[in-house]
Amino acid sequence: MPRVRLEILKRSKKSRARLGLLHTAHGTVETPALVTVATQAAVKTLTAEQAEGAGSPLLICNTFHLHLKPGEQVVRAQGGLHEFMAWKRPIMTDSGGFQVFSLGFGRDYGLGKIGYRDTTAKVGLKQKPKLLSITEQGVTFTSYLDGRKIFIGPEESMSIQAALGADIAFAFDECTPPNADRAYTEMSVARTHRWAERCLKARDPKQSLYGIVQGGKFKDLRRASARTVASLPFDGFGIGGEFGADKKTMTAMLREVVRELPEGKPRHLLGIGHPDDIRRIVKEGVDTFDCTVPTQYARHGTAFTSRGRLEIGSSKHLKSRAPLDSACGCPTCTKYTRGYLCHLYRAKEYTAGTLLTIHNLWHFNELVRRVRTEIRRGLI
Amino acid sequence: MPRVRLEILKRSKKSRARLGLLHTAHGTVETPALVTVATQAAVKTLTAEQAEGAGSPLLICNTFHLHLKPGEQVVRAQGGLHEFMAWKRPIMTDSGGFQVFSLGFGRDYGLGKIGYRDTTAKVGLKQKPKLLSITEQGVTFTSYLDGRKIFIGPEESMSIQAALGADIAFAFDECTPPNADRAYTEMSVARTHRWAERCLKARDPKQSLYGIVQGGKFKDLRRASARTVASLPFDGFGIGGEFGADKKTMTAMLREVVRELPEGKPRHLLGIGHPDDIRRIVKEGVDTFDCTVPTQYARHGTAFTSRGRLEIGSSKHLKSRAPLDSACGCPTCTKYTRGYLCHLYRAKEYTAGTLLTIHNLWHFNELVRRVRTEIRRGLI
Repeated sequence: MPRVRLEILKRSKKSRARLGLLHTAHGTVETPALVTVATQAAVKTLTAEQAEGAGSPLLICNTFHLHLKPGEQVVRAQGGLHEFMAWKRPIMTDSGGFQVFSLGFGRDYGLGKIGYRDTTAKVGLKQKPKLLSITEQGVTFTSYLDGRKIFIGPEESMSIQAALGADIAFAFDECTPPNADRAYTEMSVARTHRWAERCLKARDPKQSLYGIVQGGKFKDLRRASARTVASLPFDGFGIGGEFGADKKTMTAMLREVVRELPEGKPRHLLGIGHPDDIRRIVKEGVDTFDCTVPTQYARHGTAFTSRGRLEIGSSKHLKSRAPLDSACGCPTCTKYTRGYLCHLYRAKEYTAGTLLTIHNLWHFNELVRRVRTEIRRGLI
Repeated sequence: MPRVRLEILKRSKKSRARLGLLHTAHGTVETPALVTVATQAAVKTLTAEQAEGAGSPLLICNTFHLHLKPGEQVVRAQGGLHEFMAWKRPIMTDSGGFQVFSLGFGRDYGLGKIGYRDTTAKVGLKQKPKLLSITEQGVTFTSYLDGRKIFIGPEESMSIQAALGADIAFAFDECTPPNADRAYTEMSVARTHRWAERCLKARDPKQSLYGIVQGGKFKDLRRASARTVASLPFDGFGIGGEFGADKKTMTAMLREVVRELPEGKPRHLLGIGHPDDIRRIVKEGVDTFDCTVPTQYARHGTAFTSRGRLEIGSSKHLKSRAPLDSACGCPTCTKYTRGYLCHLYRAKEYTAGTLLTIHNLWHFNELVRRVRTEIRRGLI
């Protein structure tokens, strides 16, 4: 399998945005591109055909979840993720590093990655997460399935990801908690860098590997992390963790990071891609980004439209014969009315989640396509 | 909308089976045919495209459930069920009569329609169901949604079904409890006949209306019911209720009923269509039948295959790269392995239900197609 390669078609003169083609063994993706989340090797509520039909150009699956269930050896025995899922386009797997946060300090402090909350309980060098232990060697998790202990270090993450066989793997890192103090973040990011080198030694050379930049909300640590990771022979770069309390801070921080990354290699922003964020992050030079918003909100009845959000469960939609979005050409909008979708949602039919997920993915993919057009036309 | 018409292409010489075409305003259905259950105006877990792709020739929606949610006026305002659901093929609506049983004595005695249990607690003239009251005028239900009282009589059922606008409506009846004694059954079936006449007066003349034969497990009452209902100007006939303790009794009873029905009109067997039953009921001259087995079992992880049932949740399937059924050409079997489906089911991904529902519907529809071929070839 040849490694991925980013062909840059155009660089914006107005921003750091770039238009490109990400060439992979499973086809070429036009960038910037939204990566659809398929945590457990499925886009929730959709078949592979439906995810294709919604325009999803590539997927990101979750290494930690697939290690637990069904286990990477099952996936390998099925010929790897592509054959397992019957998905022909490219796939990424994250490294499990986000779970080091989400099942650790994130859980302990009730913190989500998006939606920063300034808690007074800062994470410092003396704090330890309750349900996992992080050492130089790696992380011992407690399985949420059966309580058994699961050790994942850089070598294990590489081995799991090699067995899963995605086009793009990510280096194992600690996603630093947003409430980590400077001392903790310094210690954590240095360890993440040592893990990055171990990942490079343990990688499957046939698989592309992205390094991950951390550094929390400390600008100098972010820049230093970007410089360090950029100096290593990765095929691309992920940018992880929390960026700060507001959009402005996020943008500024992203700019600091991206300027340290090599021009010719792809950049992936992990876990960010709200409609409000897409233009902003693309303008900072991000090529791909993944986000659970389109799929997760769909299952909770929120449709994103050209006129803003629409809560399909509200009874006011019951009599509407309009589509979710009259400006949308997705399989849901061309066929089903708001009234019907509202009924399905209120009647707790799974089909509501399916039809809204198709719409939201289409809407997001269309939004990113328009952003690509804007770069092509020199508008952003 | 022209009423339905059954064109009989061939009558079996070996049985009472017949091969036909049911002509409706929404196209022609080859009979015998399995009617796919779409209780709340959706085949559970599927989009309309997926149900079409699984070969479902016609659907049956539930009058009682749709009256409660979203309400028939909502469906009417959306242009009727076909437009509401974006379903182009024919649709039936049952009458609500089955809920007279299932939310009444059925609930009180823990009885399912299929799976007869001989309870010692017989329903006689002195028993009354706890949650509803049945009078000559009609039935007062207690809504499971909010506890409010809902009255449905023959006129209300006709009016609700007219608003829903299916191709075929059913007369309002009481589906007699399987443990009803003779006195109760006699009283109930006589009332169902009086309701049938009221339905004919209240019907929408543009909609086809099937009368329903009841009579419980009493052969003479069944025959008398069939004779009475057959004498009324219905467009077709439904056969409802419980038939007896075993397949042999069911077959014999069905034979008694069908011989009283006019040759030229369609016959629908309500709520029966297990793979073991299909050949048997077709050989007794049934043209259409509906059954929740393919869809309901799918959601619980049971796939029907040419080699019998398969429980996809069993971990033994995890490493299998075989399709659910190597003899099957359905969209699921042509694309996904048992291993993947097993993973999806165990990981509680909704997509498992979707893919198994598609397979089961295809399998059942294919089974009925083969039965049609056997009639055509004079084999049954």
